[in-house]
Amino acid sequence: MPIYKAPVADTLFVLNDVLGYERYANLPGFADAGPDMLEAILGEAARVAENVMHPLNRVGDEQGCVRHEDGSVTTPKGFKEAYDQYREGGWMSLSLPAEFGGQGLPYTIHSAVGEYMSSANMALMMYPGLTQGAIAAILVHGTDEQKQTYVPKMTEGVWTGTMNLTEPHCGTDLGLLRTRAVPTGTGSYKISGQKIFISAGDHDMAENIIHLVLARIEGAPEGTKGISLFIVPKFKLDADGNPGEKNGVSCGSIEEKMGIHGNSTCVMNYDDAEGFLIGAENGGLRAMFVMMNEARLGVGLQGLSISEIAYQNAVAYAKERIQGRSLSGPKAPELKADPIIVHPDIRRNLMNMKAINEAGRALLLWTALQADVTRSSPDEAARQTAEDHMGLMTPIIKGVLTDKGFDHAVMAQQVFGGHGYIEEHGMSQFVRDARIAMIYEGANGIQALDLVGRKLAMNGGRAVQTFFKEVGDFCEENRANEQMAPFTKGIKKGLNDLQAATMWLMQNAMAKPDNAGAASTDYMHLFGLVALGYMWGRMVKTAQEKIAAGETAPLYEGKLVTGRYFMDRIMPETSAHLARISSGADSMMALDAEAF
Amino acid sequence: MPIYKAPVADTLFVLNDVLGYERYANLPGFADAGPDMLEAILGEAARVAENVMHPLNRVGDEQGCVRHEDGSVTTPKGFKEAYDQYREGGWMSLSLPAEFGGQGLPYTIHSAVGEYMSSANMALMMYPGLTQGAIAAILVHGTDEQKQTYVPKMTEGVWTGTMNLTEPHCGTDLGLLRTRAVPTGTGSYKISGQKIFISAGDHDMAENIIHLVLARIEGAPEGTKGISLFIVPKFKLDADGNPGEKNGVSCGSIEEKMGIHGNSTCVMNYDDAEGFLIGAENGGLRAMFVMMNEARLGVGLQGLSISEIAYQNAVAYAKERIQGRSLSGPKAPELKADPIIVHPDIRRNLMNMKAINEAGRALLLWTALQADVTRSSPDEAARQTAEDHMGLMTPIIKGVLTDKGFDHAVMAQQVFGGHGYIEEHGMSQFVRDARIAMIYEGANGIQALDLVGRKLAMNGGRAVQTFFKEVGDFCEENRANEQMAPFTKGIKKGLNDLQAATMWLMQNAMAKPDNAGAASTDYMHLFGLVALGYMWGRMVKTAQEKIAAGETAPLYEGKLVTGRYFMDRIMPETSAHLARISSGADSMMALDAEAF
Repeated sequence: MPIYKAPVADTLFVLNDVLGYERYANLPGFADAGPDMLEAILGEAARVAENVMHPLNRVGDEQGCVRHEDGSVTTPKGFKEAYDQYREGGWMSLSLPAEFGGQGLPYTIHSAVGEYMSSANMALMMYPGLTQGAIAAILVHGTDEQKQTYVPKMTEGVWTGTMNLTEPHCGTDLGLLRTRAVPTGTGSYKISGQKIFISAGDHDMAENIIHLVLARIEGAPEGTKGISLFIVPKFKLDADGNPGEKNGVSCGSIEEKMGIHGNSTCVMNYDDAEGFLIGAENGGLRAMFVMMNEARLGVGLQGLSISEIAYQNAVAYAKERIQGRSLSGPKAPELKADPIIVHPDIRRNLMNMKAINEAGRALLLWTALQADVTRSSPDEAARQTAEDHMGLMTPIIKGVLTDKGFDHAVMAQQVFGGHGYIEEHGMSQFVRDARIAMIYEGANGIQALDLVGRKLAMNGGRAVQTFFKEVGDFCEENRANEQMAPFTKGIKKGLNDLQAATMWLMQNAMAKPDNAGAASTDYMHLFGLVALGYMWGRMVKTAQEKIAAGETAPLYEGKLVTGRYFMDRIMPETSAHLARISSGADSMMALDAEAF
Repeated sequence: MPIYKAPVADTLFVLNDVLGYERYANLPGFADAGPDMLEAILGEAARVAENVMHPLNRVGDEQGCVRHEDGSVTTPKGFKEAYDQYREGGWMSLSLPAEFGGQGLPYTIHSAVGEYMSSANMALMMYPGLTQGAIAAILVHGTDEQKQTYVPKMTEGVWTGTMNLTEPHCGTDLGLLRTRAVPTGTGSYKISGQKIFISAGDHDMAENIIHLVLARIEGAPEGTKGISLFIVPKFKLDADGNPGEKNGVSCGSIEEKMGIHGNSTCVMNYDDAEGFLIGAENGGLRAMFVMMNEARLGVGLQGLSISEIAYQNAVAYAKERIQGRSLSGPKAPELKADPIIVHPDIRRNLMNMKAINEAGRALLLWTALQADVTRSSPDEAARQTAEDHMGLMTPIIKGVLTDKGFDHAVMAQQVFGGHGYIEEHGMSQFVRDARIAMIYEGANGIQALDLVGRKLAMNGGRAVQTFFKEVGDFCEENRANEQMAPFTKGIKKGLNDLQAATMWLMQNAMAKPDNAGAASTDYMHLFGLVALGYMWGRMVKTAQEKIAAGETAPLYEGKLVTGRYFMDRIMPETSAHLARISSGADSMMALDAEAF
């Protein structure tokens, strides 16, 4: 049975010591959540994740969801009760606006808590996770009446939400979608069509489910310009706003998936379902993007979450399993063999996971703080910088942390040897669950294209230049600091490779767009390495300052070693990425399709 | 439903044109299998793989194996019939010695055929695969009587074999094993203990199962020096050598695994089972290694097999699925969108798989030819060189091709987007099946240690120096050939990195063995890249010669492009490996176990 312990001390180190959480106290929400309150909330979140969510993780995988003949769906045993505890504990409403019943706390805290909950039970956390995205779309694009009608119940968690984009023939290319919306003349629409891969599409945990559905209004233009977004409740609301008559929407089947069995992934059939336009007619794609950006950060967080719990279990096994002797002589002579954590190749796996998890956590929390700035800072310049940061980092966080999350689940499973391949140890579940995060909310190849094709050039490259300057300045400022030299040297080398790749793209992608596409995934990972390396620079500097001030703690010592490992073993990958990018698209694109 | 087509043309190109198959005609077995016969055998093997084995692959995954209350095991529907066709077709006996009923054909052909069969149905092919290993051990270490008793029936395939090494507390470290053997005084032993992860441990496909079991004879020394190997038949043989009374061995349970559901992976309980010593008392580990080396090459082959079928399905999907438009303008304007094979990032995945699969196939077949030389060449020097080659390449083939095989299954799944995550498309099965190959027959970390800790220094580094010289000479010989320049340049750069890493190891691993452990996995992959790159050099040169001679064919053109892709996009990784290796063990080993 896998273990899990929320890494509260690391979250607090990053937020308080590295990122200067207290500097944000002027923003709304932060005033109510000073460092003491932050610690208390994280402590309580840890308790819920460890004791309520985590024990159901294997259960969810084993039992999965069941669709009954009437189209209703039952979630795994215990899921509803755990979800009730979650929403009654106020975890759903944490960072939602007070005017709709939320607690108005920072999004940053919501993110920190989200990591723990998704580590503990990714499949279960998707039910409230999708609801957060749906709420965000209604808050941004809905009318006041729509907000009043739906958001309070969703904030409370008694109703949940979904996102309905994909159809059998269209996923990435939403311009192809066929679901139709016919105006009734009374302000509503009749929605008909089939949507697939709908997470939390139907279940038994909420009194109503608010589907946000992309569809094409009769007569609308073809392609993405003719898509509108609709609210389609599972149960139509009666005059008092309570769920009444069943709407024309139902779960046609549950997909049999590789993982996240605890989440019901539904084929949803819409048959003249009553729907209400949200946002502008034919402006559906823009409205949906609000949900998608938030969701993409959430998926990046899932990558970290699975990586963290997989890591913790690999560590526990490596300390307990005895096999062979250390190459440098017995370390546990009283036993018949040493614990396998003495073996370098086991360490390599553990250190890789640790080095990327800790930097990934810092990158996510840094970005979450920027999200809070974009939401509520009174300073326009600060908001713009924060928006730039988020736009730039969203595809990187989604693409890189989910690729790494999966790799790490595989590494952790490898530490278990043959036992890792047996389902009862739970390591296979981490691999199978982590796999989806590379695919949904825009496959990682799409994230890379978003980065290279949109984010890089946006506003004349402002976001990327700001980032390069910040990282470059950090290296410059610490040039005289000898203790920092191995770190600034590694970061600087990575930054140079990233800047060279950026320059190569500027010079070669305009004339030949395939060069951008051919470079995209490598560029995303190269960027991710530099961003993670920069996080290591900041963490190490903070730890050095703490130690210099006499505050020794294993956490600080650990940062120095792990940061060094990152520079020694992970940062060198930047040069391979640069070499690949600079080779261009020629050998990648030269073969005729028939030659494959 | 996944597709599969055996890559016969590529196998023939590699064997006939690149590796000079006809030059081996003087070896026994090859005389009976000239180029025409080779082509006929491969064609027939393709038919069996595609039409008999492949249709059962999904069935095996879905149904799995069932253990009944009496301990008997039923394999998935159709497996027994397919296995009967396989053995009746002579595929089991292909390269086994004629004196025991085999056909005495080259091991190379057995390997080529094995790739197709494992692509088509890896789980099913493990039943005969384990039997091959067991036969090899009996042939090398058994008495004449043991050979006569067991090998003919196993060659015919009416009996199958297993390897029983692992116990719950010991996998890699066999010195810890506890299974006991008590002499009966009449030449046999009573074997008692529990073995786990026994592939094909029990099933309904054979009349008897010949278990090869590692156990410790009462009073034997502790550790690996006190281990002996025993033959334990499922049914004791009567006076006529036919299966009679049930022996004291039974399947206690079937493991619930991540993949290869069609293979019965058993917990085997030995309870005073009658066993017969094979090989020397306390010489069991050495005897078992005979099986393991053969098995390791077989597992490397599985890596290629899954990679190939995953690739083929990704290609088919990428040609058929339409989504979005090419960055360089519509390629299929008559459709609503272009097939996704026009997108560079999709190509990147396909080209990565293609570039490594084709070189992996060449490396495997080259090594298989060396196996034939070691078996039957009259030339002692040639045998020694071939043995050196095999010893060196076995861990590389096992470790690198299974790591890549898994990566490629994941890449192929990614090409399918969300559909790849749904079990019915079969891509998840490839990922789940491929995962075990990185673990069993020595986890890949162990392969890396075997390479760095044993193979590298063996006979004063003779094997590795021979390889370096061959690759260096190839680059030198083709220096004046301008068409070859991009290839020899890439290979030479990789070889330089590999030689630098080797030098670093020589200088740093003796004094501090952890430096070797810390370098091992990177070194294995670095070596693999150079070996695969060298295969590309040879394939490209052959293709260029064919084209120069007027023999144009898409296969030859494809080699030029794909080889170039390898040099552009894959070979650059060697520098990252070298950088990691040279960073040493310090940051990897510095943390206390408690700090994880």
